[in-house]
Amino acid sequence: MADALAPIAPYIVQEAVLAALREDGAGDDITTRAIVRPDQWGHGVFVAKELGVLAGLPVAAAAMTALDETVSFDTLVAEGERVAPGSELAEVEGPLAAILNAERVALNFLQRLSGIATLTREFVDAVAGTGARILDTRKTTPGLRQFERYAVRAGGGGNHRFNLSTAVLIKDNHIEAARQAGIGDVAAVVAAARAAAPHTTRIEVEVTDAEQLKEAIEARADVVLLDNMSPGQIRDCVQIAAGHVQIEASGGVSLENVRAIAEAGVDFISVGRLTHSAPALDISLEISGL
Amino acid sequence: MADALAPIAPYIVQEAVLAALREDGAGDDITTRAIVRPDQWGHGVFVAKELGVLAGLPVAAAAMTALDETVSFDTLVAEGERVAPGSELAEVEGPLAAILNAERVALNFLQRLSGIATLTREFVDAVAGTGARILDTRKTTPGLRQFERYAVRAGGGGNHRFNLSTAVLIKDNHIEAARQAGIGDVAAVVAAARAAAPHTTRIEVEVTDAEQLKEAIEARADVVLLDNMSPGQIRDCVQIAAGHVQIEASGGVSLENVRAIAEAGVDFISVGRLTHSAPALDISLEISGL
Amino acid sequence: MADALAPIAPYIVQEAVLAALREDGAGDDITTRAIVRPDQWGHGVFVAKELGVLAGLPVAAAAMTALDETVSFDTLVAEGERVAPGSELAEVEGPLAAILNAERVALNFLQRLSGIATLTREFVDAVAGTGARILDTRKTTPGLRQFERYAVRAGGGGNHRFNLSTAVLIKDNHIEAARQAGIGDVAAVVAAARAAAPHTTRIEVEVTDAEQLKEAIEARADVVLLDNMSPGQIRDCVQIAAGHVQIEASGGVSLENVRAIAEAGVDFISVGRLTHSAPALDISLEISGL
Amino acid sequence: MADALAPIAPYIVQEAVLAALREDGAGDDITTRAIVRPDQWGHGVFVAKELGVLAGLPVAAAAMTALDETVSFDTLVAEGERVAPGSELAEVEGPLAAILNAERVALNFLQRLSGIATLTREFVDAVAGTGARILDTRKTTPGLRQFERYAVRAGGGGNHRFNLSTAVLIKDNHIEAARQAGIGDVAAVVAAARAAAPHTTRIEVEVTDAEQLKEAIEARADVVLLDNMSPGQIRDCVQIAAGHVQIEASGGVSLENVRAIAEAGVDFISVGRLTHSAPALDISLEISGL
Amino acid sequence: MADALAPIAPYIVQEAVLAALREDGAGDDITTRAIVRPDQWGHGVFVAKELGVLAGLPVAAAAMTALDETVSFDTLVAEGERVAPGSELAEVEGPLAAILNAERVALNFLQRLSGIATLTREFVDAVAGTGARILDTRKTTPGLRQFERYAVRAGGGGNHRFNLSTAVLIKDNHIEAARQAGIGDVAAVVAAARAAAPHTTRIEVEVTDAEQLKEAIEARADVVLLDNMSPGQIRDCVQIAAGHVQIEASGGVSLENVRAIAEAGVDFISVGRLTHSAPALDISLEISGL
Amino acid sequence: MADALAPIAPYIVQEAVLAALREDGAGDDITTRAIVRPDQWGHGVFVAKELGVLAGLPVAAAAMTALDETVSFDTLVAEGERVAPGSELAEVEGPLAAILNAERVALNFLQRLSGIATLTREFVDAVAGTGARILDTRKTTPGLRQFERYAVRAGGGGNHRFNLSTAVLIKDNHIEAARQAGIGDVAAVVAAARAAAPHTTRIEVEVTDAEQLKEAIEARADVVLLDNMSPGQIRDCVQIAAGHVQIEASGGVSLENVRAIAEAGVDFISVGRLTHSAPALDISLEISGL
Repeated sequence: MADALAPIAPYIVQEAVLAALREDGAGDDITTRAIVRPDQWGHGVFVAKELGVLAGLPVAAAAMTALDETVSFDTLVAEGERVAPGSELAEVEGPLAAILNAERVALNFLQRLSGIATLTREFVDAVAGTGARILDTRKTTPGLRQFERYAVRAGGGGNHRFNLSTAVLIKDNHIEAARQAGIGDVAAVVAAARAAAPHTTRIEVEVTDAEQLKEAIEARADVVLLDNMSPGQIRDCVQIAAGHVQIEASGGVSLENVRAIAEAGVDFISVGRLTHSAPALDISLEISGL
Repeated sequence: MADALAPIAPYIVQEAVLAALREDGAGDDITTRAIVRPDQWGHGVFVAKELGVLAGLPVAAAAMTALDETVSFDTLVAEGERVAPGSELAEVEGPLAAILNAERVALNFLQRLSGIATLTREFVDAVAGTGARILDTRKTTPGLRQFERYAVRAGGGGNHRFNLSTAVLIKDNHIEAARQAGIGDVAAVVAAARAAAPHTTRIEVEVTDAEQLKEAIEARADVVLLDNMSPGQIRDCVQIAAGHVQIEASGGVSLENVRAIAEAGVDFISVGRLTHSAPALDISLEISGL
Repeated sequence: MADALAPIAPYIVQEAVLAALREDGAGDDITTRAIVRPDQWGHGVFVAKELGVLAGLPVAAAAMTALDETVSFDTLVAEGERVAPGSELAEVEGPLAAILNAERVALNFLQRLSGIATLTREFVDAVAGTGARILDTRKTTPGLRQFERYAVRAGGGGNHRFNLSTAVLIKDNHIEAARQAGIGDVAAVVAAARAAAPHTTRIEVEVTDAEQLKEAIEARADVVLLDNMSPGQIRDCVQIAAGHVQIEASGGVSLENVRAIAEAGVDFISVGRLTHSAPALDISLEISGL
Repeated sequence: MADALAPIAPYIVQEAVLAALREDGAGDDITTRAIVRPDQWGHGVFVAKELGVLAGLPVAAAAMTALDETVSFDTLVAEGERVAPGSELAEVEGPLAAILNAERVALNFLQRLSGIATLTREFVDAVAGTGARILDTRKTTPGLRQFERYAVRAGGGGNHRFNLSTAVLIKDNHIEAARQAGIGDVAAVVAAARAAAPHTTRIEVEVTDAEQLKEAIEARADVVLLDNMSPGQIRDCVQIAAGHVQIEASGGVSLENVRAIAEAGVDFISVGRLTHSAPALDISLEISGL
Repeated sequence: MADALAPIAPYIVQEAVLAALREDGAGDDITTRAIVRPDQWGHGVFVAKELGVLAGLPVAAAAMTALDETVSFDTLVAEGERVAPGSELAEVEGPLAAILNAERVALNFLQRLSGIATLTREFVDAVAGTGARILDTRKTTPGLRQFERYAVRAGGGGNHRFNLSTAVLIKDNHIEAARQAGIGDVAAVVAAARAAAPHTTRIEVEVTDAEQLKEAIEARADVVLLDNMSPGQIRDCVQIAAGHVQIEASGGVSLENVRAIAEAGVDFISVGRLTHSAPALDISLEISGL
Repeated sequence: MADALAPIAPYIVQEAVLAALREDGAGDDITTRAIVRPDQWGHGVFVAKELGVLAGLPVAAAAMTALDETVSFDTLVAEGERVAPGSELAEVEGPLAAILNAERVALNFLQRLSGIATLTREFVDAVAGTGARILDTRKTTPGLRQFERYAVRAGGGGNHRFNLSTAVLIKDNHIEAARQAGIGDVAAVVAAARAAAPHTTRIEVEVTDAEQLKEAIEARADVVLLDNMSPGQIRDCVQIAAGHVQIEASGGVSLENVRAIAEAGVDFISVGRLTHSAPALDISLEISGL
């Protein structure tokens, strides 16, 4: 697949890394300045401390080289690969002061993105063999959406719409608002969206029961979102849909119930916790002088 | 205590919120634009879906009012308070389109910050009655350090140094670098730091065994950081320190072992997972027309 | 339709206006500073000097009030309405120095956006009664995409995908690249896109002849883009498509040929010149003292 | 002349290009990511599709190399040169994904700037042999003033004042304001401006009839601006001026009447449409694999 | 004169103040947060501690209100007025925490700008009664040019060109470069500048001796800059100029020699130290509870 | 000492330099563009014109190379070294236009930072042999704090806390506020600060007389700040302190009285004028063609 390894654009990485370095006072590290000589050389190895999936080395590399362009950074494991405790991920070498200044920022990105990739991979593996695809949501960390979507892809998941201006997703509030405004029912709402929105977006409609599902199918929605249904309810919906619309399940998805949901026959399962609750993957930078 | 409720400065909240709204395409929501009339009014209530500690309502308020200044936002629960499933946290009212555009950004901040406050509170409660104080670390989300430190305070925790330019923390890498550079041992390193750094910073030194601890005390360090020691080892160190230095424990701290560490007699326990691995608190915005 | 009047989000208007004022040295107008007393009051009327469609008054209002919050701005004509020479569009009143400082920026936005709305309206009127919808493209002015898309909507047109990350549009270069890479033909390319891209995007494929069109239909593309075809060729393609895909025509579209293209039966006609070549609408600010 | 080829400063080009790439989602192109392999190489040629004057290749080059520093960009035609349909303007080579991601931004700048250069050249040629110089105005696209002024120079035109803080231009509103404020007549206004403004600026005064012209000459203005006069009126003014002031004509200037205005003897003709209404020059990027 | 009191545009003040507050950690003041209750009220008076000229109160006001919009700020002395030790300049009232957080930023602007206004006023007074006008230069603090130029005006001085793109100032390096490039002598250089630069700029030429002065007059320069000449040399040049060009003296100007230079008959004296070496005016904020 | 030569991080220098170049219109120099050929080469030497201490060459280098990466910059004197009139500091070579465009920005930074380093060195030398260390304050130029702190270090001084969020400094206003709020006396205030602030900060308390000093010692403050005391008063306080707290003197410190203050036995003397009133060091760039 062409997709798997496509990196985040360097200019976007660069901007995020510089903001993070500035936030961390990197380049004004009063401890290092007092103790480490400017000409002192350092060498370090990024090492995984637990099982997981790697994501974020290009960001770590950008952090490491931002303070001193003579720093070298060599990747030892590819993005998206599984790592084990003790796996050496990358090697960095250059002025020790630069390495120490950037260490925390590099690790903060690397651990978070690897944490997301790791959790995504667990969900992806849990549904292996079913036709369901694991997706992220818009429940990302403010400021890091492009990075976290990348991490989800590194973990084998897919991305939902980028943001509100990207695609139409009609939720219960929209349907209720339309009803109150006299626009009408689901069919009218879908029609309004199709008329006003770019033709490049598919129309997805959230439904809460079989009745609404039928209305959405009638209205020729492209996808329906089943919110917080049990696997049993989902299975019923899949049968009603009968291939006329694609089906996304969302809400309350966990590693415990995701396979049951997938086996109920949905096309997509979107999981907020991939990005809002993934624990960081434990990674450290082991530094040695030269 | 004067500290507990001090808010984040509004101009900092404003900048972060606008960046997040822009990232989410808020104000260019093609679904809402197609369906909701500009003059349609909305009303919503932020409701907790699980037990936790609240943090972030001022940020949610800023998001909600950023798109339309006629939106009103009324806080129903104070920052740092415990909430239960069903607790109503705040009420928002105004143009429905503005509310729908800002909903996700408001929730993304609110859930993350409340998640951190909640996890912090669990650690703080776990050490209640001991003399130990739970602290955050620099393992924060890039771009959100001020927000996450605030959430830790909302949960009853304390803040460690803000960043590299704020205070001296001499780690093993610094000591090893100094040895190689011929600066000398722990005593020499502490002296170098004291000479070069602002006099406003205390000098904290990471030690890995009792020998180094004695050197640090000899060198008149203000605080020592015990990295990844067992409660037993920590207890030995506390006895050696005998009040001559304060003691911070860090590394591998969990809800399971934090009380044992606290009871070993340390002054501070810094916990990376407060900010790098706190799961989001489940909160939703329940919207109704008017 | 709910869509027509939805404004650009104020925070986005504000940022663009401040950047433009800064660029124009507004607030540091050495002529006005030398001649106009700070307490001198002014009044002005925005007047159309030619036939057209109005767009951009909220931006002009933001410019006028940015330098002095006591400036009042009253809209006299709604966005998207037709105006004639002499039509009074809005009234502004406040400190004369503020009005003079902001005049050029207000007009630069207003004339450009109204020019786009006007040209769009001409194309929309030219295809009235056919089923074709006039769309913009990504050929917008760098930095002003949200504003120019808004102006197209004000003129009765629709928007194409916002940008590269929003929706899939497979062009000849992609198909050729896939062929060289051994991915395969149109069917394989469409399948790859559907597998990797968010499920919220429809898949549009550019085709250059009837053969490719058939392949695209076979591959179950959602939309095909006919690039630079004559009305006759387009008509043939519409017959082949027979409703299995939607059809967008693009390339070389002018007021002369747009109706013929529309009558050939396409669903969408995207017109680059709406945004890259629309002449400004002549509007002036007629100022008087009070 | 030293001026003709002086480029826009690279750091200014860089900033504008990155903003435009970000706006276009470049680096997050979901189509290319799905279809083009990261190691796939591409080659492209920028080709003019119509007669015109070239401007903007350095900006296109910056866009092309911003996403991947291994992209090479070779200029084949100099800025400001005339091009014909089929003229090859520049060659680009590098990772195909980077080229496809940057294509639209590169073209958007190139077509707009070349459009301005082309229209400017038409006006400049129309007055060839007269003493009149064609100038731009402040009616530029918000955010692109430096770029559009450059394009005007590339087309053989000259630049008017950069912005409000650069030079004094006393318009009818200023004169009227001064009259109301009791500052006095044209002579008093010119004196006030000369006293308050930097000595580096010449004093230009807008006049609407022969009477005001005489007052401006009396007041020792350096330049007078004749607004919206016919060639006949202009000729009369030139005779009155008799070389004591320079004369700029503005307002309602078109390719039809510009030569008559020039032959009336003015020194400068400023033309708003150079920047607010120049149609884009048709240029395409023809990409081929390698 | 209309000029004296014209303020800096609020949006420019706002941006500079927010950047300064952020730099100073305002809004995250760990001392105030620990000690001052959020509901505690404060009142303060800005008091001059030495003789001087006031400039910068609007900036101080913006700083004071940026952290809390309920803070009130009342100006007691007008910009540009003389103040004595003990003069009360402004009163501030509102939440004490906000006042304490913004205090340093407000004072840093106020003291610097008043320092510049004060030194400017000394130079202006020193040349009172001569025809010479005291001007600033481009030797301003990076980032604060608009503010420092304002302070010079507040002190009774005038402004030189804003920056390199504003006006032509031909220095010895330009003349030498032109000679080496074969463009020719002073006359040719002046002609080249007049041909290429906007007609709104006067042409100023730096000369180092009487010979060059004659060439510049011959070349019809508008102003000559006499660099680092003694009053005697200047007087000779003034006689040669005989009113055909204006004369600016610069270089090595001090309060000791400025009157002699002025009496030598120059039109302008530009003084770098107004902005690069003015000592801050001592001002304090005396805070009291309410 | 490891500290002396540690540079400011390049990414911070780069950002400040680009902002300053933009402010100065560098890259749009209408004089140079008219006169200097793009291919003309230049060479320049930065030369000190008076005695002083050098600081800022890396910033000047960044300015010189920002406009054209082919410019070379060779440092001839190390940061922090003393220079005499005529000392050659650095050599620059490259396209003449780039050098002329960046000249003023390079010098503005270099002269200001060297001025601060020079004044700092005078204070440092004045207290040589005593135990007192000369410190800066937060009275820095808005936007340049990191640069000015660097210059103080280059002059042999030390840095105080970076900003409000870095360390606790309890001033008279805090103590008075605490008294009014019923928190209590100095002891209570110190305790509140110690409880709420990061443990990494020492607690410094401003005292105005011997009584308060005793309270502060009692309260176990780490440092006391003696504000505006005479050397005699300071000496008394030093005796009272008797080594239990460190002592900083501040307020009204001049080159005349600083030695007396130092000899009174204080540990630190903080001097606002190092940064708010240091006159620029006279440095010029002497350019020659090649």
